[in-house]
Amino acid sequence: MTFTDAAMDFDRYDRIRPIRWQGDHLALLDQRKLPFVVEDVACADSDAVARAIHDLVVRGAPAIGISAAWGAVLAGKGVQAANGAEALERLAPALDRLQAARPTAVNLMWALARIRRVMAAAGADWREVLEREARAIETEDLAANRRMGALGAALIAPGSGVLTHCNTGSLATAGFGTALGVIRAGVAGGRIARVYASETRPWLQGARLTAWELLQDGIPATLIADGAAAHLMKGGAVQWVIVGADRICANGDTANKIGTYSHAIAARHHGAKVMVVAPSSTVDMATPAGEGIEIEMRDPAELLSVAGTRTVAEGVQAWNPVFDVTPAGLIDAIVTEKGVVERPDAARMAALFGPGSAA
Amino acid sequence: MTFTDAAMDFDRYDRIRPIRWQGDHLALLDQRKLPFVVEDVACADSDAVARAIHDLVVRGAPAIGISAAWGAVLAGKGVQAANGAEALERLAPALDRLQAARPTAVNLMWALARIRRVMAAAGADWREVLEREARAIETEDLAANRRMGALGAALIAPGSGVLTHCNTGSLATAGFGTALGVIRAGVAGGRIARVYASETRPWLQGARLTAWELLQDGIPATLIADGAAAHLMKGGAVQWVIVGADRICANGDTANKIGTYSHAIAARHHGAKVMVVAPSSTVDMATPAGEGIEIEMRDPAELLSVAGTRTVAEGVQAWNPVFDVTPAGLIDAIVTEKGVVERPDAARMAALFGPGSAA
Repeated sequence: MTFTDAAMDFDRYDRIRPIRWQGDHLALLDQRKLPFVVEDVACADSDAVARAIHDLVVRGAPAIGISAAWGAVLAGKGVQAANGAEALERLAPALDRLQAARPTAVNLMWALARIRRVMAAAGADWREVLEREARAIETEDLAANRRMGALGAALIAPGSGVLTHCNTGSLATAGFGTALGVIRAGVAGGRIARVYASETRPWLQGARLTAWELLQDGIPATLIADGAAAHLMKGGAVQWVIVGADRICANGDTANKIGTYSHAIAARHHGAKVMVVAPSSTVDMATPAGEGIEIEMRDPAELLSVAGTRTVAEGVQAWNPVFDVTPAGLIDAIVTEKGVVERPDAARMAALFGPGSAA
Repeated sequence: MTFTDAAMDFDRYDRIRPIRWQGDHLALLDQRKLPFVVEDVACADSDAVARAIHDLVVRGAPAIGISAAWGAVLAGKGVQAANGAEALERLAPALDRLQAARPTAVNLMWALARIRRVMAAAGADWREVLEREARAIETEDLAANRRMGALGAALIAPGSGVLTHCNTGSLATAGFGTALGVIRAGVAGGRIARVYASETRPWLQGARLTAWELLQDGIPATLIADGAAAHLMKGGAVQWVIVGADRICANGDTANKIGTYSHAIAARHHGAKVMVVAPSSTVDMATPAGEGIEIEMRDPAELLSVAGTRTVAEGVQAWNPVFDVTPAGLIDAIVTEKGVVERPDAARMAALFGPGSAA
C-alpha cells in the first residue's frame, strides 16, 4: 500500500469529535469523565466556555483555541452593535476572560486574535463574520491535522514502534489529532507496528484518553507507566517518540505536557527519535527560546489524589508543573501543516515560519 | 555539627518498624493500606508470610528477606526433628514456597540461604538456632542501614537537594532504610536541604509510603510526578538521585523499581549524581551484568486502576515491568554496609565484594 492510497483510509481511524457547535450552544465532550462516561457539557455562554477550559472539560491546545472561538460566538449573542469594531468593544471583557482561562496555551491567544482581527474589520454582518471565523478555525484544524498526519508518517520507517505521551488526538483537536494524527496516518499506511501510550500523571490523559481514543478507532495500543519509557526504549521497542506541543519557540524549544522532556532525554540516550507535531498556530516566533516560557503550575492536590481517591497522607507537599520544555537539540522533527522542520534551530524555524518565509 | 555528632541524632528520624516478631506470629505492617490505615497483618504460618510477600503487604528487598526468615521460623513450629538437617528436609517445601513469592529480590534467596546453612549444621537445638538466625538477619539489617546512612551522607555536599524513588525506607527494611537511611542521615547531619520523592507508578510507593514515612519522622519532602523529575533537575534542584536496589550485579549494574533508570539518565543529562544504597546481601556477584537479570512482570491490571479505581477503558492492554536496570556507567556510587564503590565497574566491585576482598 503506498502512502497516497493509505491517506484515503484516514476516515477509518477518525470517528471522534469532541467540540460540536449546536447553533445556540457549544457541546463539549466532558474529558474529565472519560473513558467511562461519554457525556457532553453544554455551554450556553462564553463564561461557561471559559470555565470548561479552565476546569479541563476540554483540553489540548488546538481544542482550547477552537472552543474559545466558539466561546466568542456565544459572547456575541446578547450584543447589539452597528459594526464589528463596536461589537468587539462590548465583547472585550468576555474575550479577556476566555484568554485568561489557560495561560500557557498559545492557541488560545492565537484563536482569539483571529477573532479580534476579523471583527475589527467587519461591518453590520459582524455576527456572521464571527461565526464563519470560528467555523474556519475548526475546519482548518481538522484539515491541518490530516496534512500533518501525512507529513509525519512519511518520516517513519515501516515496522516502527512509537511512544506517545499525554493526549494529542481527536480529543485535543477538532478531530484526527496532531501526534495521534501522525500515529493514525502511520497505522493507516502500514508504517507503525506498535503503539505505546504513557499514562501521563498526574491527570492520566494517556491512560484515560489516548488509550480510549485509539481503542475507539481500532488501533491497538499498549499502556505503560511514565517511568517505564526508558526501560521500554532500552529493549528497542521504540523508534519514534511522537508528542504534541503547547508552545514551540522560535528556536524549536517546545513546551509540552510534563514528562515529555524526560521521554526526549531517554530517546536521545537510546538512539530513538523525537517528533513534535503541532499546528503552526502553536509556533510562537515572538518567544526566542524555552527560557521565555512561563510554566503553568497547577494545584498540588492533583498529585495527592488519583481519580478522586486520596493517595497521599495529609500534610505532604507536592510540586505540580503542567509543562516542561524540551530543547530543540533533543527534537529530530517538528511537523506542522506548513511543513516539516528537521533538526530544528532558529535558522531552520525562521525559514518556514519567519516573516520572509514562503509559507 | 560534625557528622559524628549528627549520627547520634539518628534515633530522632527512625521511629517506624514494619516487621515485628511476636513469639507465635509475625506482625507485618500492611503497606497496601498506608498511609490512611495503619494496620498489621498477623501471619501465623509460613504460607501466610509467603502470601504477604507476594501480595505486597510487605515490600522492599531487605524487608522481604527478613520476613522470609521469620517465615522459616514459623514453618519450623510444627516440625519434629532430631537435628537441623532433618528439620531442614521437612521445611524444604515451605522454604521453596517462600522463595517463589517474589522472583527478582535476591535478598529473599540470600536470607533463606542463611537459614538453610545454619540449619544444616544445627543439632538438637535447631529451633533456637533458626530463631536466632532470623533475629540476626533483622538486627544486622538495622545496623547496616545506619552504617550505610553515615557512609552515603558523607558523599553529599551541605545544602544539597536529593530525589528518591519508590520506598527504600524503614518500611522497606528492619528500620531506618537504605536510600532513605542516607537521606535521614543527611538531614540529621545538615547536609540535605531539600528532599523530593517521585510518586512511583503504578504502585505509588513514593506517594503513599515515602511521603508518609518522611512526614512521620519530621523530614519535609515534596512529592513529584515521575515524569516531572527531568524538569526538576533542569532547574538545578537536585544534586543527588538516591535510590535502593533489588539486585546489584558483579559489574555494578543495578535492578531497581521501574522508573529508576529514567531518573538516572536524566541525572546524567543534567550533571546530577546517582547513589545506589543497598545492603551487601543485594550484591549478586554470580550475575555478571544487568542482561542476566530476569525482570519480574506483574499484572497489567495494576496500570489500569489506581488505588482501587479503574481509570482505563475495558480492552486496553498494558505492559507492567516491576524493575528496570540502571547500568553501572550511570551510577556514581554504590553504598553498602561494607563500604562505598564509587564509579562502579567489575574491578571495583570485585575489590569490595569479590572472593579475595577484605570484606
